[in-house]
Amino acid sequence: MPLIVQKYGGSSVADVEKIKSVARRIKRTAKKGNKVVVVVSAPGDTTDRFLSSAYEITAHPPEREVDMLLATGEQISISLLTMALHSLGCPAISFTGPQVRILTDTAHTKARILSIDTERIKKELKKGKVVVVAGFQGISREEDITTLGRGGSDTTAVALATSLKADSCEIYTDVEGIYTADPRMVLSAKRLKRISYDEMLELSSLGAKVMQLRSVELAKRYNVKLHVRPSFSNKEGTMIVKKGLEAPEICGVTYDKNQAKITIQSVPDRPGIAAAIFSEIAKKNINVDMIIQSASLKGLTDVSFTIAGADLGKALPAIKEIAKRIKAKGVASSKEVAKVSIVGVGMGSHPGVAARMFSCLAKEGINIEMISTSEIKISCVIGEKEVKRAVRSLHKEFGLGRS
Amino acid sequence: MPLIVQKYGGSSVADVEKIKSVARRIKRTAKKGNKVVVVVSAPGDTTDRFLSSAYEITAHPPEREVDMLLATGEQISISLLTMALHSLGCPAISFTGPQVRILTDTAHTKARILSIDTERIKKELKKGKVVVVAGFQGISREEDITTLGRGGSDTTAVALATSLKADSCEIYTDVEGIYTADPRMVLSAKRLKRISYDEMLELSSLGAKVMQLRSVELAKRYNVKLHVRPSFSNKEGTMIVKKGLEAPEICGVTYDKNQAKITIQSVPDRPGIAAAIFSEIAKKNINVDMIIQSASLKGLTDVSFTIAGADLGKALPAIKEIAKRIKAKGVASSKEVAKVSIVGVGMGSHPGVAARMFSCLAKEGINIEMISTSEIKISCVIGEKEVKRAVRSLHKEFGLGRS
Repeated sequence: MPLIVQKYGGSSVADVEKIKSVARRIKRTAKKGNKVVVVVSAPGDTTDRFLSSAYEITAHPPEREVDMLLATGEQISISLLTMALHSLGCPAISFTGPQVRILTDTAHTKARILSIDTERIKKELKKGKVVVVAGFQGISREEDITTLGRGGSDTTAVALATSLKADSCEIYTDVEGIYTADPRMVLSAKRLKRISYDEMLELSSLGAKVMQLRSVELAKRYNVKLHVRPSFSNKEGTMIVKKGLEAPEICGVTYDKNQAKITIQSVPDRPGIAAAIFSEIAKKNINVDMIIQSASLKGLTDVSFTIAGADLGKALPAIKEIAKRIKAKGVASSKEVAKVSIVGVGMGSHPGVAARMFSCLAKEGINIEMISTSEIKISCVIGEKEVKRAVRSLHKEFGLGRS
Repeated sequence: MPLIVQKYGGSSVADVEKIKSVARRIKRTAKKGNKVVVVVSAPGDTTDRFLSSAYEITAHPPEREVDMLLATGEQISISLLTMALHSLGCPAISFTGPQVRILTDTAHTKARILSIDTERIKKELKKGKVVVVAGFQGISREEDITTLGRGGSDTTAVALATSLKADSCEIYTDVEGIYTADPRMVLSAKRLKRISYDEMLELSSLGAKVMQLRSVELAKRYNVKLHVRPSFSNKEGTMIVKKGLEAPEICGVTYDKNQAKITIQSVPDRPGIAAAIFSEIAKKNINVDMIIQSASLKGLTDVSFTIAGADLGKALPAIKEIAKRIKAKGVASSKEVAKVSIVGVGMGSHPGVAARMFSCLAKEGINIEMISTSEIKISCVIGEKEVKRAVRSLHKEFGLGRS
């Protein structure tokens, strides 16, 4: 009997009607002769509401207690969903992350899964029950409740699919699948039938919000077939697999507006200065994305880099301190930047893709501030106001739209 | 170092301001050189809101899943309260019932505590932390989450006080303590400084809603000093101890409007007929309170009894069936009845208390429909409309008011 893991996000269980509709879909899957394990997120905006209560109490809630609080959200979902399954005559049982021993490290609010004890799940599946597991949460060796960070339910689903050797892992979302570009921005954007793990990884990390990065990494490592599907219709969605069906030059255009650019000005240029700067920044736990260093002029150089826009407030004082220490002239920063990227495993075998991207942006009169490339993606930092124009023109340039 | 268990009800943690105020009180207790374990209920009307979601999904939610759902309420409280303690610079840590192994039987929604593993709590107390434990919940041997029924947080508090050999157990409520009568009904009602377990048990079971019956039983069995205190002021409250300070005739007048009276009419009177009726009723899981059987007339008798008003709908069809089977003429029922009681350990040594109660009610022209007595209480069933008059006149008759 095939075993399917299905994951439903928070918007799919936001209210009683939606919960009932998810239950009907699960029942259909079970009726077709599948064993079904369901992973579910907290209903709607529950997590955000909990966080705002926490911050109303204190600006610095201890992370262990934040996890204790947030974990209740998924527990609400699993119990209500299981009740809905019962009421449809579909035998089901709910489990929290700790109950199925989703063992994690102790990095509260962003814990990583170490192992899962699938004993109890298998026992209940054998009894013919649908097993409903709380996403996003686990337990540490100290028996403390932990959470996996934003989008952690995807990771729970993939980890369960791996541990249970599931035949497939279906991720239900409020979009119809993975697109060649954000369909709200590019009307002709096309749904991709298949995409490779690597491409999806670049898309995730570049700001396409369909799936959590870590869950795709995990799926790649254990070769779990991921199927991203809409929760509101029966459409096909997108398969995320080892290799895409075709290997066109590029499979999609993506953007990320949550970017900030920082420039440390007039740094005395000496060997090892970049290493000195960035090892200090790393110590402050700030993730740096792109880096450029301008040509040295009179022994002075400018060092620019980007970080997540949300980190800017926290990062700036630390960076100003570093700048002072290395005797730089000053620090400039801007949140008015964004990253536009093209992604595709076929890129390597099609020379000139980068040149085509740059000239396309140039034709539009868009200034490129920074560039970074990998084997399967090219990213450019541009002004935030020019994102829409950039994405649309690149999407057209590479012939990604529906014909 | 003295160890104090404090329990705060749902209204004490209903919003962020109230949570902060509770945190300040806990900090004061800790600062005075006490070890503090706090038990807390779900915030405000959370439990009721969860239940209405559950019943929106299905008329018969499985009880295991109800417990899974309800247990989140206390988890929200413990995390937020612990954050508030941290923000006051008071080291604290929260635990769910399962985390401190509050082991219960498997009677979901009304489980009983079997044991508590105090290891982790003691370890954290030793580190100088306030330990905040979720009330109302536990875990079964099957590792399922269970709940203890309405008011279960009181039981959690007393059970923890027992297991930890606490020096006292403070129950914070939204009233100022235990009164000689409901202060909303009797203006001159007086707060009792001390009351015995037995008196409190009668008051709890007779409808005074300050504390859960089981928690007082447990406190009596293990001789845990209970201190009922207002959460909104620093007033004294009431101590519940082995023996009251004085032993007046009676310590209070109480009432319960949630009563229904059922009469099985014209039952053929033969030996064992009452046993036959009430063993059948017991099989249907209906709790019977008072019973009277009228004198036999022409071989026929009326059997009347009271049950909780809320059970009437469920009980009536079963009782009608029994009546039919024993060839009784019919069944009459009424919810327009109430129980008025006087309670006091001193009653036994003061003869004539019962007579004084009956004549007091007679003087008021109140008809007594049924009577039941124990060593420390006398209860009368009267018309529901006459409750207020009965309570006020009995309170005056026995000189319970403030002088």
